[in-house]
Amino acid sequence: MIDKLIQKIQKTGAPVVVGLDPTMKFVPDHIRKAAFDEMGETLEGAAEAVWQFNKAIVDSTCDLIPAVKPQIAMYEQFGIPGLAAFKRTVDYCREKGLVVIGDVKRGDIGSTSAAYAAAHLGRVQVGSSLCAGFEEDFVTVNPYLGSDGVQPFIDVCREEKRGIFILVKTSNPSSGEFQDRLLRTGVTAGTAGEDAGGISSPDKPLYEVVGEKVAEWSEQLMGENGYSYIGAVVGATYPEQGSVLRRVMPKSFILVPGYGAQGGTGKDLIHFFDENRLGAIVNSSRGIIAAYQSGRYGKFGPEGFADASRQAVIDMITDIDQAFASVGR
Amino acid sequence: MIDKLIQKIQKTGAPVVVGLDPTMKFVPDHIRKAAFDEMGETLEGAAEAVWQFNKAIVDSTCDLIPAVKPQIAMYEQFGIPGLAAFKRTVDYCREKGLVVIGDVKRGDIGSTSAAYAAAHLGRVQVGSSLCAGFEEDFVTVNPYLGSDGVQPFIDVCREEKRGIFILVKTSNPSSGEFQDRLLRTGVTAGTAGEDAGGISSPDKPLYEVVGEKVAEWSEQLMGENGYSYIGAVVGATYPEQGSVLRRVMPKSFILVPGYGAQGGTGKDLIHFFDENRLGAIVNSSRGIIAAYQSGRYGKFGPEGFADASRQAVIDMITDIDQAFASVGR
Repeated sequence: MIDKLIQKIQKTGAPVVVGLDPTMKFVPDHIRKAAFDEMGETLEGAAEAVWQFNKAIVDSTCDLIPAVKPQIAMYEQFGIPGLAAFKRTVDYCREKGLVVIGDVKRGDIGSTSAAYAAAHLGRVQVGSSLCAGFEEDFVTVNPYLGSDGVQPFIDVCREEKRGIFILVKTSNPSSGEFQDRLLRTGVTAGTAGEDAGGISSPDKPLYEVVGEKVAEWSEQLMGENGYSYIGAVVGATYPEQGSVLRRVMPKSFILVPGYGAQGGTGKDLIHFFDENRLGAIVNSSRGIIAAYQSGRYGKFGPEGFADASRQAVIDMITDIDQAFASVGR
Repeated sequence: MIDKLIQKIQKTGAPVVVGLDPTMKFVPDHIRKAAFDEMGETLEGAAEAVWQFNKAIVDSTCDLIPAVKPQIAMYEQFGIPGLAAFKRTVDYCREKGLVVIGDVKRGDIGSTSAAYAAAHLGRVQVGSSLCAGFEEDFVTVNPYLGSDGVQPFIDVCREEKRGIFILVKTSNPSSGEFQDRLLRTGVTAGTAGEDAGGISSPDKPLYEVVGEKVAEWSEQLMGENGYSYIGAVVGATYPEQGSVLRRVMPKSFILVPGYGAQGGTGKDLIHFFDENRLGAIVNSSRGIIAAYQSGRYGKFGPEGFADASRQAVIDMITDIDQAFASVGR
């Protein structure tokens, strides 16, 4: 699947993923009204509005982009009908040939992570049948529980040729609260009382130590193009850390959220990529799907929301192209 | 809700939560067969089997215990039908008067955490209606993204009088990989180049620093009994860390997984509690719901699985009582 992602990035010339994170306030009035008229101001009505909104944006942008990233929380808030709209969106995007990155940020102890991996990337045994719950191509994974929370995802990725992106340095303002804390390297609480023998390694922030672990995990499952099925998430809002992490995880594709509405710009992105414009894929959610609500794309109006999204994708690709050009890539 | 949890613990004399984490292999053949005969070897059939299994265990144990903890991954693996069985289980347990702790381990950037909080503890605006997706009393939260990933949960807890348990030190074997790493205190990557002025604080493991943050968050939302709506998760498998964390987070209830099948025993638990047998609630999943499959409760047989679960709950309460008695509490 990492190879398919790379092929699609090369074909479209767009290391771009559209974040399908619909909230009610992004959905134009006419779509909401139609859904509520049909199904009421209910979870079912909300889910229908979200699905119609997504479908129009996907139809309008799918030839330009390699991948989409639906954020499951935005569907989960609408309960079972919302999660059915998530599944419908995932299935529709895959039919359209898009790579689907389920932004689920799951992670738990071993047997539970195995269930999440089966839910989103694999299959589950029911009697003599193998059934699939959700079928994304990649999911995002939270590493706080350590290797035995991550390994079940890797095992399923190997069987199913799917992939994961592990949270390393997230895009949000408080991501540094724990992720930037400096760790004494080579020392854990269990060995704290012992003398390290006078050998002192430099301190490293937690995100770098997690990145080193991702680099290790990556080796387990390499694709054909020099990149692993095991990638990482590093926010566009932290370009310096991105530069460090690009070196620490040379074989991991980096999923980069935080472009656009969260503040990241084209020039912040360069350090996430390798010399061949590969190694990273940049997500924009609000900046694309709610483009019609911004001054820049206001002329499209609510009825033209999908065209506004298409134009915003084109402009984002141009912005990244120009950033590459400015450094001669 | 923390007050309701404490009242129910005092009434039952059981600081115990039953983990409703059904996998197909725990469900007795006769339940599976009935469900598959009716609905096929499908996700729907699996979900029906899980629901019937849960219902029997809840009916058989609900007078003995204050709370249940369904692990959503075990339902999510069965897709939409599985999640519908999760919702049905949550709703049924609440009808029975049980406190429901949704073990969802969600956590994301601010606006996304707000959606998860609405999904599981709050309500979501749909037109002029307020709708609820899932309705647990507590959920578990992953802290890796820092304050702005946690605060939206706290805000919803305040509005809805519900609570959270934040992962601090998890019960799994590799939890130390990141959680036990020693942090230089008072120093983050951003200030690494600067001299700390010769003042040196002792190093602390990450879990302790997360625990200190939980203590801070706890202050925001106190119940009437000296404990906060904001609790923590600390594994029974790490009693020493539990002892430290009990002191670090004096106002946080601790949800303690890892008892029984994962290796934790009654005597490991004492340090998680305060002098009044409060401050902690101990989860057992497999040890209760799959009791009939173990030698100790084999005499109940598959048909008597719910009675075996009841006996396992009684024995767990006795084990904890004896541990208290051994230290004169």
